Amino acid sequence: MPERGKNGAPVDGRVRAVIDAVFPAVDGGRFAVKRACDELLVVEADCFTDGHDALRVVARWRAEDAPAWQETEMTHVGNDRWRGAFTVDNPGRYRYTVTAWVDHFLTWRNEFARREDLGDMVIAAQVGAGLIREAAERARAADRKRLDEWAHRLTTGGDAVTLRTVALDDELAQLAARYPDLALAATWPADMPLVVDRMRARYSTWYEMFPRSSAPEPGRHGTFHDCEALLAYVAELGFDVLYLPPIHPVGRGMRKGKNNTLGAGPDDVGSPWAIGAAEGGHKAVHPALGTIGDFRGLVATAHEYGIEIALDIALQCAPDHPYVKEHPQWFRWRPDGRVQYAENPPKRYQDIYPFNFEGDDWRALWQELKSVMDFWIGEGVKIFRVDNPHTKTFAFWEWAIAEIKGAHPEVIFLAEAFTRPKVMHRLAKLGFTQSYTYFAWRNTRHELTEYFTELAHGSGREYFRPNVWPNTPDILTEALQFGGRPAFMARLVLAATLAASYGIYGPAYELMENTPRESGSEEYLDSEKYELRHWDRERPDSLRAFVALLNRIRRENPALQSDRSLRFFPTDNEQLICYAKIDQARDNAIVTVVNLDPKNTHAGWVDLDLAALGIDAQHPYQMHDLLTGARYLWEGARNFVQLDPARVPAHVFGVRRRAHREQDFDYFA
Amino acid sequence: MPERGKNGAPVDGRVRAVIDAVFPAVDGGRFAVKRACDELLVVEADCFTDGHDALRVVARWRAEDAPAWQETEMTHVGNDRWRGAFTVDNPGRYRYTVTAWVDHFLTWRNEFARREDLGDMVIAAQVGAGLIREAAERARAADRKRLDEWAHRLTTGGDAVTLRTVALDDELAQLAARYPDLALAATWPADMPLVVDRMRARYSTWYEMFPRSSAPEPGRHGTFHDCEALLAYVAELGFDVLYLPPIHPVGRGMRKGKNNTLGAGPDDVGSPWAIGAAEGGHKAVHPALGTIGDFRGLVATAHEYGIEIALDIALQCAPDHPYVKEHPQWFRWRPDGRVQYAENPPKRYQDIYPFNFEGDDWRALWQELKSVMDFWIGEGVKIFRVDNPHTKTFAFWEWAIAEIKGAHPEVIFLAEAFTRPKVMHRLAKLGFTQSYTYFAWRNTRHELTEYFTELAHGSGREYFRPNVWPNTPDILTEALQFGGRPAFMARLVLAATLAASYGIYGPAYELMENTPRESGSEEYLDSEKYELRHWDRERPDSLRAFVALLNRIRRENPALQSDRSLRFFPTDNEQLICYAKIDQARDNAIVTVVNLDPKNTHAGWVDLDLAALGIDAQHPYQMHDLLTGARYLWEGARNFVQLDPARVPAHVFGVRRRAHREQDFDYFA
Repeated sequence: MPERGKNGAPVDGRVRAVIDAVFPAVDGGRFAVKRACDELLVVEADCFTDGHDALRVVARWRAEDAPAWQETEMTHVGNDRWRGAFTVDNPGRYRYTVTAWVDHFLTWRNEFARREDLGDMVIAAQVGAGLIREAAERARAADRKRLDEWAHRLTTGGDAVTLRTVALDDELAQLAARYPDLALAATWPADMPLVVDRMRARYSTWYEMFPRSSAPEPGRHGTFHDCEALLAYVAELGFDVLYLPPIHPVGRGMRKGKNNTLGAGPDDVGSPWAIGAAEGGHKAVHPALGTIGDFRGLVATAHEYGIEIALDIALQCAPDHPYVKEHPQWFRWRPDGRVQYAENPPKRYQDIYPFNFEGDDWRALWQELKSVMDFWIGEGVKIFRVDNPHTKTFAFWEWAIAEIKGAHPEVIFLAEAFTRPKVMHRLAKLGFTQSYTYFAWRNTRHELTEYFTELAHGSGREYFRPNVWPNTPDILTEALQFGGRPAFMARLVLAATLAASYGIYGPAYELMENTPRESGSEEYLDSEKYELRHWDRERPDSLRAFVALLNRIRRENPALQSDRSLRFFPTDNEQLICYAKIDQARDNAIVTVVNLDPKNTHAGWVDLDLAALGIDAQHPYQMHDLLTGARYLWEGARNFVQLDPARVPAHVFGVRRRAHREQDFDYFA
Repeated sequence: MPERGKNGAPVDGRVRAVIDAVFPAVDGGRFAVKRACDELLVVEADCFTDGHDALRVVARWRAEDAPAWQETEMTHVGNDRWRGAFTVDNPGRYRYTVTAWVDHFLTWRNEFARREDLGDMVIAAQVGAGLIREAAERARAADRKRLDEWAHRLTTGGDAVTLRTVALDDELAQLAARYPDLALAATWPADMPLVVDRMRARYSTWYEMFPRSSAPEPGRHGTFHDCEALLAYVAELGFDVLYLPPIHPVGRGMRKGKNNTLGAGPDDVGSPWAIGAAEGGHKAVHPALGTIGDFRGLVATAHEYGIEIALDIALQCAPDHPYVKEHPQWFRWRPDGRVQYAENPPKRYQDIYPFNFEGDDWRALWQELKSVMDFWIGEGVKIFRVDNPHTKTFAFWEWAIAEIKGAHPEVIFLAEAFTRPKVMHRLAKLGFTQSYTYFAWRNTRHELTEYFTELAHGSGREYFRPNVWPNTPDILTEALQFGGRPAFMARLVLAATLAASYGIYGPAYELMENTPRESGSEEYLDSEKYELRHWDRERPDSLRAFVALLNRIRRENPALQSDRSLRFFPTDNEQLICYAKIDQARDNAIVTVVNLDPKNTHAGWVDLDLAALGIDAQHPYQMHDLLTGARYLWEGARNFVQLDPARVPAHVFGVRRRAHREQDFDYFA
């Protein structure tokens, strides 16, 4: 007998409803599905029972620490699949599940409607009266009376027409349905985890900037004050996250010189990722940048601009980091009495000491590393870009992110992992809010279509939120090295319209910095990673206005603020890529066409899916190019485009459908 | 801190290996994967760790009630996917899982091979000596000494060449690998269930026959003795399972007459599925068939022919079944004091009382129903065909099958459920060994290709074993009604070559009975379900020789005894379907071509996948038609076929590749 309830089998053998294949689910509920606050969670399940009895199915959800479930009725959509949907208003950790039961009242009602024999109907009416009386016992007082009256009328006889009319009363059926018998309901054995994040988790626009290069005059080490002065610029460009590489004291031991050379000179500033020196470690600020008070000022002023400061979490130490002396047990030691530096033979990284996550003192290490993030949360930072999370033990991230988001559900973690696909996905499952992607190396129409289709529609869509970067301080792609201004523009359009979250490393990007350290390298020449740089943000050829325009288009068009609706359309020229994002609820659709060849004008035909865009194929519609302001009248699915990369290598079209209301002055809404 | 080990997270935070996406898995391990005794279970998993350290991964398995695991090393096949395989010899319930660990010895060895600096190598050799000494402590005495000596040699210095030679010794590395440090190994949190069945679960050939129609002379009720006399015939036809519809006393209350009419006459024998009368119920035999002793005799004689008797389990009662009086609480009662018969308004089945699985006495009901099967197992029956399992509560089947197979792992259950896809799959997941399919209604090339591709390669392949029937007593398809002898031959070839398990309802099939009760019906006219029939098995037009030939081909060609290798090949005539089954281990390949049009000769080109068939495209190969004995010399992938349905509507080719051994007399093996 199955009292044992093993493997989720029902404990009561009389439970007849079956629930299978609940979706979405990440590894069967081992990991959380992610949604933003305004995003629908559509829950589906296979539900059925033996024989022909009627089923009812509900989706249920609750905050993880709340005892009471909320619920919504699911409907049968065919092939024993049921569907329901809900949204959650506040960030946090939730649980959802599915409950189904054989509904005797509904079964009775369905069968009654098909009965033909009067004698049969009289018996059935008595059966129904019994079920309705049971519902009455579960009902609130006011409803109980009406149900009891109904049961009574069912047993007082009448002809077939009267009996049927009484039995099939719609309103009373709805009333009875409110009080189902759940004694033998089946519930999906796993309470599936759901992480609800604030909106910026889904839609964010990042700008990466080295604070030490923010001084208005050349040669001086920039400060938080200088950064503050640049906030107006960042805001003008339309970014809402300003991400700073590590702001901590830079180690002196084995410090790297300009262009990553060994043996730094006395004036070399070193890599900000070589964290820790006599002045302090991960909870200190580099004295040259200012004080912790100056940092607080920067955070506060940024807030006034609608910009959040994101910090870098790089869990590694320079040789002179205070941890090395204070907690030698957190490092691996070599037989020669030295700390084991990072290495991948024959390469050696003697300026970086990784933590040993296999040490006996791992609990204290984990607590300390988490306390670094807690410290900065205390200073007003709610977004962290985590450096190389895949080189730290995975279990740490699952624990630390859950702990931190448990106390601060608004915190966002971006995983900087450009590693193997399975590893990147694992990090996203473990809790990272957003993830870096391979976008930088996806250039052709085929590559972009395949990759972004996977991101938007693959199983990872439930937990892996892409954040795409055309460049980073580590990545100056070949496309940018050789494509000139058109490539910088095209890659920016692609990033801003393919992904709801994207970022650039500036001002290198808008100033189109494109010289590599050496041929075949993706490293920048004279990289800010190893020296101070001075940038002329006022240069007339800067892309700042173009960046600002694209970011404004993103703000004004909700279709671009989510990834799930992305779909690609065919073109007859493989240098032209065409795709749409659609926000049906807000009646907003954006069609983007990009010329991927930075050197030549390309023309061709694009084939829109008019039904998906909500366009009536019988009437012309307007395509409003939000980059140039031009308006085109298109008809049918197939239309001609031509793009000269020397001018603007892309169209970003707002789709203006013919308005259906006759009183409208403008025919295109 | 993650001591809580929630959701399978590692309890020890130092565990760095990650295991993900273990395959195969049915609903994450909620249900068992199925294999036959000789079938490989190929286990795959995504395994990785942080950073660059080397991983080792093993697949482990054990009998469900055995404490000790066996294991096999898994190998990396790319993209962080690991694979290993094993077979299990004895039927039963097993568990399998995956264990992975960061292997410091292997990491050290891989890195040592890449080291260039002598100082670096000396330090590394000391580190390695430490690891080897740790392995020595875990080693058996004989190995311990060798490992300790090796560690010693590593610390006695030498030049780079010597050090490298000592450090990278292959044989010693293999020795050390036998004693890994598993203290921080990760194990997939679920022990995944595996049901191993005997061979007949995977490969079986069924013949259904009404014992009461087995008398050699017309008009007499057949007996078990008559059945025994027909075993030679069944064996000649090549069947290994003889399935009998219910053999119990047939109810007299509301008994159905010929052709399912109401109001049976005194001579009407009724439906064998209306089980139970004064003479007894599910554990009794119909007196007209003989005694339980006669039944035992039939089972024993069948065994001598290599034939197993399969019984029908139909869990429902005729109104005069003893259960109704003895256990009224197992039925649903109507307000008028009568038992609720089966109904689907407006249809009523007053001769059938279903059990009420929601009654309070469900435990006793379950025990009694299971005891029916135990009773027949005691009489030597090891195969059950379960009638309409989808109209009994699903939880009962999961419990009953697990209990029965726990005691008798050799028992086979065939689910007779022609219902919705999700329901059929659920029954298979719950434990049914084989399942009826939609084959009877799949006729076109497209339909057959799509359906059998799903069966052989869809996710159900891990638990749903198809058993295909071109006819049953309930199903006389349109194809057979109108297609004549060619349709009977073609459907037989399809069943016998597409599916490792198939069956026919005879002698209706081999005698090509094809008259429906009425136009548009799939019911047989004068169906054996309601009356005795007399069959002339010696009719010269019988298909018995063709059936015997096909079943011999199945016995002689292991490729046809499994479904997983099925693949379809293109043809340029949509009336021609072409497919292959391949048993690589036994070097056996069968290519079948069927003309699906019973009225016309069709010719066309078929495109074989030569690589899949193991054929060298540079040389001719022989196609040996096992139906006619004809041999064709083919060259290249594309070849011509022509099939006249008036003769034989199919080729069943044994593929004879050019033998590679020069000493062979016959060039085609």
